[in-house]
Amino acid sequence: MLNFEFYNPTRIIFGENTIARLDELVPAQAKVLVVYGGNSAKAFGTIGEVTKALGQRKYVEFGGVEANPDYLTLLKAVDAIKEHELDYILAVGGGSVIDGVKFIAAASQFAGEDKWAILEGAPISQALPFGVVLTIPATGSEMNSGAVISYRERGLKRSFASPLVFPKFSILDPSKTLTLPERQTMNGVVDSFVHIVEQYATKQTGAAVTDEFAEGLLRVLLQVGPELKANPNSVQARSDLMWAATNALNGLLRLGEVGDWSVHAIGHQLTALYGIDHARTLAIVLPGVWQYKLEAKQAKLAQMARKVFGLEGDDERELALATIAKTEEFFHSLGVGTRLSDYDLDVQAVVAVVANLEKIGATALGEDKDIDLVASTKILTSRL
Amino acid sequence: MLNFEFYNPTRIIFGENTIARLDELVPAQAKVLVVYGGNSAKAFGTIGEVTKALGQRKYVEFGGVEANPDYLTLLKAVDAIKEHELDYILAVGGGSVIDGVKFIAAASQFAGEDKWAILEGAPISQALPFGVVLTIPATGSEMNSGAVISYRERGLKRSFASPLVFPKFSILDPSKTLTLPERQTMNGVVDSFVHIVEQYATKQTGAAVTDEFAEGLLRVLLQVGPELKANPNSVQARSDLMWAATNALNGLLRLGEVGDWSVHAIGHQLTALYGIDHARTLAIVLPGVWQYKLEAKQAKLAQMARKVFGLEGDDERELALATIAKTEEFFHSLGVGTRLSDYDLDVQAVVAVVANLEKIGATALGEDKDIDLVASTKILTSRL
Repeated sequence: MLNFEFYNPTRIIFGENTIARLDELVPAQAKVLVVYGGNSAKAFGTIGEVTKALGQRKYVEFGGVEANPDYLTLLKAVDAIKEHELDYILAVGGGSVIDGVKFIAAASQFAGEDKWAILEGAPISQALPFGVVLTIPATGSEMNSGAVISYRERGLKRSFASPLVFPKFSILDPSKTLTLPERQTMNGVVDSFVHIVEQYATKQTGAAVTDEFAEGLLRVLLQVGPELKANPNSVQARSDLMWAATNALNGLLRLGEVGDWSVHAIGHQLTALYGIDHARTLAIVLPGVWQYKLEAKQAKLAQMARKVFGLEGDDERELALATIAKTEEFFHSLGVGTRLSDYDLDVQAVVAVVANLEKIGATALGEDKDIDLVASTKILTSRL
Repeated sequence: MLNFEFYNPTRIIFGENTIARLDELVPAQAKVLVVYGGNSAKAFGTIGEVTKALGQRKYVEFGGVEANPDYLTLLKAVDAIKEHELDYILAVGGGSVIDGVKFIAAASQFAGEDKWAILEGAPISQALPFGVVLTIPATGSEMNSGAVISYRERGLKRSFASPLVFPKFSILDPSKTLTLPERQTMNGVVDSFVHIVEQYATKQTGAAVTDEFAEGLLRVLLQVGPELKANPNSVQARSDLMWAATNALNGLLRLGEVGDWSVHAIGHQLTALYGIDHARTLAIVLPGVWQYKLEAKQAKLAQMARKVFGLEGDDERELALATIAKTEEFFHSLGVGTRLSDYDLDVQAVVAVVANLEKIGATALGEDKDIDLVASTKILTSRL
């Protein structure tokens, strides 16, 4: 097992009817920016519940944070914080809203004029405190310290991380996810699945506990995905998905393991350029990366075949290939396409994505840092 | 799944050669009480490594904290803190030392004259900060906010918990456990195993993620126990045991589940009265509790038979009974006796333990609160 460090101070409040607890979780004197995405948070009454729970506290609403939150939108929220002299933020939504709030929390306290510098690695020395009311289980952002921000005007999508942007608390009420469209629910299953395997399906490091946790979460997703496709009203399955998605990216699964993350790096460009849902970009790229790195990943993919898909056999290569096939099958069963052509993209997209990877210096990806631009081209070409 | 709350801010530093990191983890101006147990921490050089890492910081050593730390010993440490005007504590050892330090941290800031009141539920409003260098994987105390303290003079063993006594950090260096006697290593395996099942083997609540985590950890223990009995020098197995033991009681496994904890409540009295190793008291009591509650626990014990022991079959009762038999077999394979007679105790001990349970008001134990004194008598009698 590799040495590791783990620290995660986010308080989780999990269960139905927990939004009212905001009154004890948000400091009594806080002046709050309530950030949300589209109209559904308002239409389904969640924003009303949240502002009611805030009681006498001063608050300002900021809606309209888009999927893959845009830098320019978030700058307006930073302005709102200054204008209204706010000192606390509440994110009400999924990963896009939470990631956006992490950036707002940091940017509002960032001395430099150019806030995009944060996405280019400029150090953060402070951030506003914030809490989360989660409505989409998918990204795990509710219990980690990372965020991904898009800059559409420049065709960019970059990430940053800092212990200063752990949520103070996250309220996870699975009943709030009952109104999600099927597409978003299934995206959440795929996103969580890929978060797990980006940490798990790399090298054998002998981290037995972490492997067990990863395999257990994958089995849960294999079960709740089809369950929710058949019966979206199951609060039980919604609960399991919600807690699985959080654990998929709260730091537990990287402990003692070597991460890959090439699938995300390549997938981000497909979102930046063509606006494809994040989860769907991962479903496209993942089988290509696994196929390209078959030899290096063979032992772990074979372990996954046995422990996650319940397959038997002695041929490690055959088992690894079966994992790739079974994974694609699983994504298809959720209605998620796994090829560029499923999204009306052709070889032009390969060229454009690789050009973007070059632009941001993503030329040595994966657990062995051997996915260069040529390899990315091969991987994407295999996904036409 | 039941509603839950989770919060755990302890920073974990895991791996070989990590003690030197104390220099960055302990505040530069801290004046430190270094607390440890017997002579081994000194003899094997761990205390030397720790004090070297503290550099120029003022520190005072306090050794001699016994297994099942005694109230009167710990009061002397509280005096040492006052006498030397110290403001930080380092626990170097296993669960007994860490539990002791939690009490010292709280008692040194407790206004009342009678510090035992903390063990009787008096609220704590502050505690000194402290860190941990773990040398025995077993209790999970390195990543939770609970402690168990003995008061031999009065034949008592009680617990307390407070978010104020989470360790600020815990250093887990598995190579520091290579010198443990076999007895302590095996105790750690059993202790961790019982921590897991006290949270898992109760009712079906449908907490799929938590169940998977528990079952995964149990499988790891089933593997590393015999491995370490055969080859105590395996750093790999030492690492897996160490991280499994921490996760067995860091809060993750209670999420969405109903806890039992009757095994601990009854077992504590065996330690208080006869000084039997904590883990061994659990090995004695556990099969009795499971047998007594067979009907209520049947579904979960059958699930454990399938998922942990890999058994098959349709008869749930048979499977549940098989789990009890397999568990006892596992403890025996580690050299741990599971009957009172293995520790030269007879029916007199049953009477004495039950009298103690009555004295501390432990008259409604277990997930259904239906283990009264009569039930405890039956359970213990079945373990003669």
